[in-house]
Amino acid sequence: MSRPFNFSAGPAMLPELVLRRAMDEMLDWHGSGMCVAEMSHRGKEFMSIAERAEADLRDLLAIPANYKVLFLQGGASSQFAMIPMNLLGRGNGADYLNTGSWSKKAIAEAKRFGPVHVAATTEASRFTRAPAQDELALRDEAAYVHYTPNETIEGVEFPYVPEVGDKPLVADMSSTILSRPIEVARFGLIYAGAQKNIGPAGLTIVIVREDLIGSPIAGAPTMFDYRTHADNDSMYNTPPTYAWYLAGLVFAWLKDLGGLQAMAEINERKAAALYAAIDESGFYANPVDPSARSWMNVPFTLADPDLDATFLTEAKAAGLLTLKGHRSVGGMRASIYNAMPEEGVRALITFMQDFERRYG
Amino acid sequence: MSRPFNFSAGPAMLPELVLRRAMDEMLDWHGSGMCVAEMSHRGKEFMSIAERAEADLRDLLAIPANYKVLFLQGGASSQFAMIPMNLLGRGNGADYLNTGSWSKKAIAEAKRFGPVHVAATTEASRFTRAPAQDELALRDEAAYVHYTPNETIEGVEFPYVPEVGDKPLVADMSSTILSRPIEVARFGLIYAGAQKNIGPAGLTIVIVREDLIGSPIAGAPTMFDYRTHADNDSMYNTPPTYAWYLAGLVFAWLKDLGGLQAMAEINERKAAALYAAIDESGFYANPVDPSARSWMNVPFTLADPDLDATFLTEAKAAGLLTLKGHRSVGGMRASIYNAMPEEGVRALITFMQDFERRYG
Repeated sequence: MSRPFNFSAGPAMLPELVLRRAMDEMLDWHGSGMCVAEMSHRGKEFMSIAERAEADLRDLLAIPANYKVLFLQGGASSQFAMIPMNLLGRGNGADYLNTGSWSKKAIAEAKRFGPVHVAATTEASRFTRAPAQDELALRDEAAYVHYTPNETIEGVEFPYVPEVGDKPLVADMSSTILSRPIEVARFGLIYAGAQKNIGPAGLTIVIVREDLIGSPIAGAPTMFDYRTHADNDSMYNTPPTYAWYLAGLVFAWLKDLGGLQAMAEINERKAAALYAAIDESGFYANPVDPSARSWMNVPFTLADPDLDATFLTEAKAAGLLTLKGHRSVGGMRASIYNAMPEEGVRALITFMQDFERRYG
Repeated sequence: MSRPFNFSAGPAMLPELVLRRAMDEMLDWHGSGMCVAEMSHRGKEFMSIAERAEADLRDLLAIPANYKVLFLQGGASSQFAMIPMNLLGRGNGADYLNTGSWSKKAIAEAKRFGPVHVAATTEASRFTRAPAQDELALRDEAAYVHYTPNETIEGVEFPYVPEVGDKPLVADMSSTILSRPIEVARFGLIYAGAQKNIGPAGLTIVIVREDLIGSPIAGAPTMFDYRTHADNDSMYNTPPTYAWYLAGLVFAWLKDLGGLQAMAEINERKAAALYAAIDESGFYANPVDPSARSWMNVPFTLADPDLDATFLTEAKAAGLLTLKGHRSVGGMRASIYNAMPEEGVRALITFMQDFERRYG
């Protein structure tokens, strides 16, 4: 257990047990003589891996039977186009909540395909809070409502699921999926790039209610039609098989740990400890309203930005990696996804306290 | 070296040395303490991996400086749309050569975005030959000419590069790239899904002449605009980092083996030996015109199709995997990409001869 703790926002730390399993199976998966990356996606070996991964994900999130689970490529950035291309036909434009850098990207891309109404924005407070339910100016005729439950860059998180009536609620859960239980039935479509809480980059999970599939706008590529993938169990073309396999190992690891309720308790403890250390320090600061602080991404600044470089150098030497904040925010960011053990957060806090003692 | 020989058409066998290297580096890449899948794509460790992979690929294929190399997601199926979306604006429709199952898919998708002229087809001969240069009814006003140098399913391969004047030649090299040297300057755009001769599924390589980038049709998603990726060194969004790394290990392995001229000699020997065994048998048959037989994918039938199941069962017991032919063609198919050693082809031939002796 001498591996460093990697606080990268994504691609991010993977559970050591998952990596060890992948290592053990690299040359020979279950007596097949093949690495999973070498298997035909249509062979029975890979089919069993794919089906098991989906079943475990359905189990973890308690996904209702009328939702499809798609294993796609292209990242959230592709979903930013694929969602309006498939859903805009259902109404008169879409409502988007603007709560940070990733919301803005989703909005900019959606505008290429139809009218977008920004139903709430927290830009005036520099994205340091979540809008309240009664601030959401939702329209009855909206095709859907899109929001970003957790903003990876600003470290701001909705403390509630917006109530949107009978319109489909679409959520970019890239940096929060699997961090706690959710009620999938409140969403029309959930999407997530894998590289934070699921597995390696190059896999994108989409959980979509079946009635929302099948009416893309004219000019949508076949690969951007959800039906293409839903009708073919995500094997219309060759899927990212090795990433799918690694995601399946992560799902099995989560189940072994007790599922998402157990993870939620761990994640809440990790975040609470780190925010408490920041708030009590007088040297570190986090600008986000306490009611909307992310469990997953914790940005913080040092009282003296001239110490940033020293902080990063010493942290790395202490086995605490990738703490540099996003260039648009500055300072530091500790991403503490499921794979970050509590021990890692404790090590970070101890380092921060020691650093403050020496430089504060 | 007791691993079985896997003749899958893709995802396909990977070099054992590459898998062993990935296994060794799984928990700690070069002292970083991280698996490559855990690294931030913008960190210096992954940047060095990404740059090295591109440099090695450029070296292997002698790619001229005025070509961009893109590391994308979505497979050839996404390129079937991305190519017309980016290039159709350059002329009055596009010319496509129809030489097999993958050509047909490319044509069907391109028709969604503009007029397609089929400039040659070998469908009447059930795709068992390549059209000659003087059969190509190319149009001066075509935006580009698209063809499939190697058809993975039918096992038919162009023995020449079509002459298309000053129009950009676009080639789906998914199942032939890196099998031998090519003259990149004769192509406007080359694309290839990685899962045959490059690495794991989930990575797509595009090699595109710079002057062809930058004029997508209206309605193209940002992720389907080559400029998005070309201007950001394939890091506009998170790339499939682990697949990129494995591809880099394959490129390094190819260079260690002597590059593409050395591979071409090996591949030609492997194919010649297998076709000779088929032709000399009187029991096995390959329908493709000898001038257009693929070096990479060798479909063959047994004299008695009732023996197919027995053949497959016994082959598997002999460590010869995934020989079942594509459902649209039937019979067997041996895919013998770069990672298939000559020893594997010899083992297959020995098995085939023994099988014929016992059942023929």
